[in-house]
Amino acid sequence: MTDKTIKAGIVGATGYTGGELIRLLLMHPHVDIAVVTSRGEAGRHVTELFPNLRQRLDLAFTAPDTAQLAACDVVFFATPNGTAMTMVPQLLREGARVVDLSADFRIKDSGVWSRWYGMTHACPELLAEAVYGLPEMNRRAIAAARLVANPGCYPTAVQLGFLPLVEEGLVDTASLIANTASGVSGAGRKAATGLLFSELDENFKAYNVAGHRHQPEIVQGLRSAAQHPVGLTFVPHLVPMVRGIHATLYGTLRAPDTDLQALYERRYAEEPFVDVLPAGQHAETRTVTGGNHCRMAVFRPGGGDTVVVLSVIDNLIKGASGQAVQNMNIMFGFAETAGLEGIAPMP
Amino acid sequence: MTDKTIKAGIVGATGYTGGELIRLLLMHPHVDIAVVTSRGEAGRHVTELFPNLRQRLDLAFTAPDTAQLAACDVVFFATPNGTAMTMVPQLLREGARVVDLSADFRIKDSGVWSRWYGMTHACPELLAEAVYGLPEMNRRAIAAARLVANPGCYPTAVQLGFLPLVEEGLVDTASLIANTASGVSGAGRKAATGLLFSELDENFKAYNVAGHRHQPEIVQGLRSAAQHPVGLTFVPHLVPMVRGIHATLYGTLRAPDTDLQALYERRYAEEPFVDVLPAGQHAETRTVTGGNHCRMAVFRPGGGDTVVVLSVIDNLIKGASGQAVQNMNIMFGFAETAGLEGIAPMP
Amino acid sequence: MTDKTIKAGIVGATGYTGGELIRLLLMHPHVDIAVVTSRGEAGRHVTELFPNLRQRLDLAFTAPDTAQLAACDVVFFATPNGTAMTMVPQLLREGARVVDLSADFRIKDSGVWSRWYGMTHACPELLAEAVYGLPEMNRRAIAAARLVANPGCYPTAVQLGFLPLVEEGLVDTASLIANTASGVSGAGRKAATGLLFSELDENFKAYNVAGHRHQPEIVQGLRSAAQHPVGLTFVPHLVPMVRGIHATLYGTLRAPDTDLQALYERRYAEEPFVDVLPAGQHAETRTVTGGNHCRMAVFRPGGGDTVVVLSVIDNLIKGASGQAVQNMNIMFGFAETAGLEGIAPMP
Amino acid sequence: MTDKTIKAGIVGATGYTGGELIRLLLMHPHVDIAVVTSRGEAGRHVTELFPNLRQRLDLAFTAPDTAQLAACDVVFFATPNGTAMTMVPQLLREGARVVDLSADFRIKDSGVWSRWYGMTHACPELLAEAVYGLPEMNRRAIAAARLVANPGCYPTAVQLGFLPLVEEGLVDTASLIANTASGVSGAGRKAATGLLFSELDENFKAYNVAGHRHQPEIVQGLRSAAQHPVGLTFVPHLVPMVRGIHATLYGTLRAPDTDLQALYERRYAEEPFVDVLPAGQHAETRTVTGGNHCRMAVFRPGGGDTVVVLSVIDNLIKGASGQAVQNMNIMFGFAETAGLEGIAPMP
Repeated sequence: MTDKTIKAGIVGATGYTGGELIRLLLMHPHVDIAVVTSRGEAGRHVTELFPNLRQRLDLAFTAPDTAQLAACDVVFFATPNGTAMTMVPQLLREGARVVDLSADFRIKDSGVWSRWYGMTHACPELLAEAVYGLPEMNRRAIAAARLVANPGCYPTAVQLGFLPLVEEGLVDTASLIANTASGVSGAGRKAATGLLFSELDENFKAYNVAGHRHQPEIVQGLRSAAQHPVGLTFVPHLVPMVRGIHATLYGTLRAPDTDLQALYERRYAEEPFVDVLPAGQHAETRTVTGGNHCRMAVFRPGGGDTVVVLSVIDNLIKGASGQAVQNMNIMFGFAETAGLEGIAPMP
Repeated sequence: MTDKTIKAGIVGATGYTGGELIRLLLMHPHVDIAVVTSRGEAGRHVTELFPNLRQRLDLAFTAPDTAQLAACDVVFFATPNGTAMTMVPQLLREGARVVDLSADFRIKDSGVWSRWYGMTHACPELLAEAVYGLPEMNRRAIAAARLVANPGCYPTAVQLGFLPLVEEGLVDTASLIANTASGVSGAGRKAATGLLFSELDENFKAYNVAGHRHQPEIVQGLRSAAQHPVGLTFVPHLVPMVRGIHATLYGTLRAPDTDLQALYERRYAEEPFVDVLPAGQHAETRTVTGGNHCRMAVFRPGGGDTVVVLSVIDNLIKGASGQAVQNMNIMFGFAETAGLEGIAPMP
Repeated sequence: MTDKTIKAGIVGATGYTGGELIRLLLMHPHVDIAVVTSRGEAGRHVTELFPNLRQRLDLAFTAPDTAQLAACDVVFFATPNGTAMTMVPQLLREGARVVDLSADFRIKDSGVWSRWYGMTHACPELLAEAVYGLPEMNRRAIAAARLVANPGCYPTAVQLGFLPLVEEGLVDTASLIANTASGVSGAGRKAATGLLFSELDENFKAYNVAGHRHQPEIVQGLRSAAQHPVGLTFVPHLVPMVRGIHATLYGTLRAPDTDLQALYERRYAEEPFVDVLPAGQHAETRTVTGGNHCRMAVFRPGGGDTVVVLSVIDNLIKGASGQAVQNMNIMFGFAETAGLEGIAPMP
Repeated sequence: MTDKTIKAGIVGATGYTGGELIRLLLMHPHVDIAVVTSRGEAGRHVTELFPNLRQRLDLAFTAPDTAQLAACDVVFFATPNGTAMTMVPQLLREGARVVDLSADFRIKDSGVWSRWYGMTHACPELLAEAVYGLPEMNRRAIAAARLVANPGCYPTAVQLGFLPLVEEGLVDTASLIANTASGVSGAGRKAATGLLFSELDENFKAYNVAGHRHQPEIVQGLRSAAQHPVGLTFVPHLVPMVRGIHATLYGTLRAPDTDLQALYERRYAEEPFVDVLPAGQHAETRTVTGGNHCRMAVFRPGGGDTVVVLSVIDNLIKGASGQAVQNMNIMFGFAETAGLEGIAPMP
């Protein structure tokens, strides 16, 4: 393990994942934030958009400049989908390593990506090289990666929850169900009527039931873990709270005799950021909001052949910026928990 | 239809369903509230517990008195489970009709009831006579009933959502899944650490995953509609909002060619309180909170053989007190919508 | 009192006050909604924007048409500031009566109005005729009015709270303080980053401390009631809830011997929508949200010479659309409470 | 400055301030938590009550044992009022130093204390020695103290907000007004109907307007800073959010020419945990929740002689456990910010 200090650049840091990434890196022992870019806010002090960072950060947004970014050891993209893919090839050529928090490099099949994201991919040749940054699946490859595709928030909670079952072939992967619920910050910091406080408070609803971009991402990951085809019904909901994702996962057991509690505890015994609750306890989002943990619980209601897994994360931390820092730690040989030791406040 | 005025009594009206029932009956054109009982609060003016009723109700809680209650045309029980069954037999003998909002008469099999509710039933001989008060299933029987068992909140949303599918035999009833989420008022007005604002706000969690009392109630109703056995996985969640239930229902289609949208619209075309949304729209709890409607939507994600139904109600109205008033309207020959014409405010 | 039916038009009904006005008028026994206009949403069915009105209203938005509006008995403006003043003169000429929920006719001095609203007034000649629609102050004038300026939300809560004191000259009007807090719906249904759920939830803040448009409106009303100059410090805050205004009012007593409780009870004894709480009780916003009441309480902490008044309303009802209906009732000779008998749900 | 490690004990750590204190101390570089007591929960693992601490703390609650506590370098009391005063004398005798988060040692006059807290003080002889732990007022005395009385949450926000004005004699101290609003966690983790989610969500109200225990605490502090008598009207409100206090302070200026912005910036220039916002910006609670900062803003609406100060803190951190850690840091010669470098997440 190393304790050198590296220089980080953040592209597009005006949204929620960008702000959270700055906050986490400010508390990281081995990182200096060298540059924070925003085309729209260039010239404004970062703390004007994030007053919580006052007295901790003295930096203004600058317009993105590839040379300046390439001089960083690591560049994070916290941009809307479609931006990273236009800048990453040059950054890699100039020797920077990249963690992309957007969806540009998550899907291996550029055709599938285009269908769901409505654009042609600008550098499909990098898709094979990009490493999907779920450390609990791909730690070794992440360590060696030049380019890490940081997973989506739902995909993180859902894949971690299903992983022990599909890796061992214990459920029928043709008919998985992921019923998920997210706090509103997952939708980002964009002015849209549908995201107003008065539209979402005291309200609960499903959305995108006909199809959501995270479905193919989850299917790709689980198929790779299962080593055979996966059918997944994915239904997201919006919860009147700022942070937190709760996944309620359903599968049909093929081997109902398995000790599922032991399986889950064993699978994640060495993971610093996955916590399997004792049998019978339920996972609450508030126990992870503010921290980088995924907490989970496994049930077999009525002793039947349906398994129910509960999996919770903070969508902006383990579901985005915290996981990005975790990936960076692995890539640069830091302690995997460096800068991520903050404990979720309660209440 | 009649427009006489009847006298109503409410037993145990200090909780949320009791307060809501008083509020609805105060706006009902054909009902006088004659007596409101509470053992613990006898002597206090009702508006001390429900200041929203000030200037509209001049009545104090009294200790429950069977003679006084029996003099009412209808007696509502808004009591904890286990109370109604001790008083109902005598009230019926003396000629009152009863709508029980507790669970005492919902389950036909007294053995099943005892297992889930942890008590011996005090009058199992009335279970066969009691009519399960879901008007969309049992309207005719309700009209003739002396004793109506008002359904639970989750069972109302879940059964209405599944009904068109199971009545027509269109789904595999062996493996139904009801993933449900409720506002906190469903847990009642009892001082418990787990129900504190600071424990539930900005938090989302499943609870009672191993087993919940509403599961056998739903199974009983769906089995009766399907005319064959039903297997149901039921997972409730708690949402940081006061009111509203959202059910996300999953089933495996047996006849994937069916026009589900048409099926649902046809099934509920004549129902005054069920609204099937146009294809593609999602049901939001806020569009029903404050009113007696159940609003629903039906989807087939990816055109596969999994059907997803969204069904929302106000847990305290269509899921409790509003449905009780609807049942009373049917029992006494009033317009079914009398006193229930309030429209959900938005936002 | 009359029970004829009148025709109502609503201009600009796509926002929250517009939607609430439609909802209230749908429950009104003497009103038919003839036309609902929106330049931007013309052609769309009203229930697409307000799904809570499904099964109750079969009407599409139309582009505003003066002739069509002038054919109504009453026209409501739920438009942004600056619109009503361009249409009202012609409507009045053609015989319609108008209730304007925007700020166009609230301030008598067109110069003051221009300074605060940043526009030149289009029909200053109507300002003298317009009646300020606070029924508890101006009931008689409202009955005879062609044009009613419906008060702002804060001004309603603040003026009703201060009125008994300033009418009787019991406080030093040179140094009044109104510390107010509002639910977010008061800010309207416009896509703005600052109104996002993720910006306002779990957050409390003052805003516009340097100056707010409702300050001159309140000062004008209190000065008229006091019959001498008024100095008012007005500080509004935003509360993470959808509805409700809470005003905490401070004044220095000139006559500390007055029985304030008796004064308040006497002042509002005949008012159908003002409720003075018993001494010692605190006013909670939830007891009025959903209804047209203003509920208030009066305190003298430590028996000193500072009086503290608490005054709560639903900003969208008594603070906007409900008060507009109340004004209409007075103008047309209906029972003042007609269509406003809904009771605030609790919880 | 030192970097030794000290042993800490926490008495009564089952509530919110206790849990938060454990969390902060776990992230402190120089503290080992040696003992955590709870009479009621003795034997249970701490993480059963605080699942957010799983994988970070392996400790069970024990019954309070004076010898064990006296072996600690510092003992924190996070107990209900009235407990610390019975244990502190012996702990001091045995050489431990104490930070009391309850109110037992905050008021110098035992008669005043008894009137507000309804008990006779058990060790009035220690009141003179106890140092009021507001570092921005009493840093030097805290460094030398054996016994620190950690301030109340409201008193922290209110005193810091008024301090620059009263120290310089710039306001009329006879008529100060503190209009304050708190998140619900300030009321603690006790099962009480009034603290239920369903009672407080979507609701805003003042409480204890006739008198609140924090009023004499604030008056004592401001009188000491002003060096002459203080009259304060203190009105607290409850906000539907978990954390955060917002104080809106009003005073009448004696010297209206003073540059208030410069005064505030100067007064707090060296303070690590007080941040004066640029002129015109408003303080939002969310920018401090999760951190130990007090953030403030100063206004003179309309350029008149009323000054308005906005002051926000996290009630559980700067208003309780964070300030306790800050006091400990000062007492033991650690960097004042040690263990308190967490930045408030946003959103």
